[in-house]
Amino acid sequence: MEEKLTEISTLGEFGLIDHVTKGIELKNDSTIRGIGDDCAQLHYPDTEILVTTDLLLENVHFDLTYVPLKHLGYKAVVVNLSDIYAMNGTPRQITVSLGISKRFAVEHIEQLYDGIRLACDVYGVDLVGGDTTSSRQGLVISITAIGDAPKNEVVSRYGAHANDLVCVSGDLGAAYMGLQLLEREKVASAGNKDFTPDFSGKEYIIERQLKPEARKDIIQSLRNAGIVPTSMIDISDGLSSELLHICHKSHVGCRIYEDRIPIDYQTAVMAEELNMNLVTAALNGGEDYELLFTVPLHQHEQVEAIPGIKIIGHITDESLGYAMITRDGQEIPLRAQGFNHMQ
Amino acid sequence: MEEKLTEISTLGEFGLIDHVTKGIELKNDSTIRGIGDDCAQLHYPDTEILVTTDLLLENVHFDLTYVPLKHLGYKAVVVNLSDIYAMNGTPRQITVSLGISKRFAVEHIEQLYDGIRLACDVYGVDLVGGDTTSSRQGLVISITAIGDAPKNEVVSRYGAHANDLVCVSGDLGAAYMGLQLLEREKVASAGNKDFTPDFSGKEYIIERQLKPEARKDIIQSLRNAGIVPTSMIDISDGLSSELLHICHKSHVGCRIYEDRIPIDYQTAVMAEELNMNLVTAALNGGEDYELLFTVPLHQHEQVEAIPGIKIIGHITDESLGYAMITRDGQEIPLRAQGFNHMQ
Repeated sequence: MEEKLTEISTLGEFGLIDHVTKGIELKNDSTIRGIGDDCAQLHYPDTEILVTTDLLLENVHFDLTYVPLKHLGYKAVVVNLSDIYAMNGTPRQITVSLGISKRFAVEHIEQLYDGIRLACDVYGVDLVGGDTTSSRQGLVISITAIGDAPKNEVVSRYGAHANDLVCVSGDLGAAYMGLQLLEREKVASAGNKDFTPDFSGKEYIIERQLKPEARKDIIQSLRNAGIVPTSMIDISDGLSSELLHICHKSHVGCRIYEDRIPIDYQTAVMAEELNMNLVTAALNGGEDYELLFTVPLHQHEQVEAIPGIKIIGHITDESLGYAMITRDGQEIPLRAQGFNHMQ
Repeated sequence: MEEKLTEISTLGEFGLIDHVTKGIELKNDSTIRGIGDDCAQLHYPDTEILVTTDLLLENVHFDLTYVPLKHLGYKAVVVNLSDIYAMNGTPRQITVSLGISKRFAVEHIEQLYDGIRLACDVYGVDLVGGDTTSSRQGLVISITAIGDAPKNEVVSRYGAHANDLVCVSGDLGAAYMGLQLLEREKVASAGNKDFTPDFSGKEYIIERQLKPEARKDIIQSLRNAGIVPTSMIDISDGLSSELLHICHKSHVGCRIYEDRIPIDYQTAVMAEELNMNLVTAALNGGEDYELLFTVPLHQHEQVEAIPGIKIIGHITDESLGYAMITRDGQEIPLRAQGFNHMQ
């Protein structure tokens, strides 16, 4: 553990920001001016600008008893970038606001920023501003991401049509099962300092929970294949909830097939071990940050040829409603039981 | 008081957002798409884009025992817009993220949004997105504002030169004295339900604290007069602290004159009543949201002709340091003792 911790009051607000953001180099032509003035200054003469924001609160969205601060910083950025990719855009800038309670030292904020800066490097994004304040509550992280896309390539939730194919990237339910595992080990370790959780054989689901990635690669693959999805959304609240968003906004229905839903082996093993319904986890478990999108039927072959994308069903007329066909041929209605932080 | 309160859980996150944002009409050509997708979509082909963000936390930045929620919503927007004006820009869009604890009902969030929407109407700004989540702590408000300015009109903190005039809009210290008064009345009313605070004759300082305005009018006046300041900043942390920001970024020094600092009569009376140093309140009291800027000496007459602007001193060579000349001719160094939420 840390030997010596530095109190944040020794630096003050401006000193802390200077300290954790020093040496940042701007990577994007659209970034004219970053940290250091009343506003960041950007320039986007030729493209559409995309803006998204997320608020993450301690003990609602993350539990610092098992989430390392560096991972938290990384994930806090990634969940925002995921929204930019979900519009078929390229993220370019972020602002980061932090509310910091007294139990945090400068070294803790350095760890958090290590993760933030790593995500910025991996995804080619500039940190251009933010706000830092003390918090009497827990840690508060508010990130806004800005990106762009050519006008005719912006993809919304509105454009799905009957007969479009419903596609999903990666696999689902792993982040949720990772969370269940972490929560179980937290309970098991309570009051036992010598307890060492055993995550062997479960590394994938742990990583999916603690250090998710945004699907920049899928957006690139679609672009390379000449595919512009008719609608797209990222899966933060569960497949079922997100697919319903697309259907409601596009005024269409859908049919997806249980046996087509991509699920990783470790996710299945964990669900079995915890005696949980695997399909429920895949449909309603949150924080996968995979992309859910629709493509016209005639692009069936092109989309099927892309590794890491699975066709899980199709769009129907709105009157046919929203359903999953189970392995034994039954039709069960989809419901938005997703991961909801608004309990 | 409210008769019947509606639990937020009856609406859920998406229902709550729909409820408080219904009927919003977009006012700016640069807003292509607002709430309802993964991102807002904006378009700024001809201008520089300005982005700023602020994080406001209950019991750090505001005390709901005396701050009405509608005023809080209004102020939370205004403090962000003030940063856009401080770059000589025009605010166009905001995103609003809220963390809401269980003690808030739908009606409370409606009041907060009444203030947010009023500020949007008054300043011609579009509410284009955000995030809403539950909070186990107090109320959390994170707002990002986006605006624009023609490239050759963006004003930063960097451009002050020796001999430039130092100017300030409005008057200083009133918001701080308003806060002192509200705090005093809070203590006086503790445990006494029948206590009615008497704010007569002190309405101005109360309003400056609870419902500040951003100086859109001053930006317009400067524009009308053909003046582009060489540097500008808004006064959120006190005149002294902000002037030092300009000096440090511009590598210059400054002299300001105590007898030139604009102070309202009510501010002076309140300082007297509370036995506080008036000039200290004006130099270091926060949340005035006035504009501090520098203009070339040759524009002396033009700037002096604008109502609501006062010339308080001049910029010097960096080697001369940062000082205020007191009424009796003494030079005292300026220090950044400002309003600091990072204790």
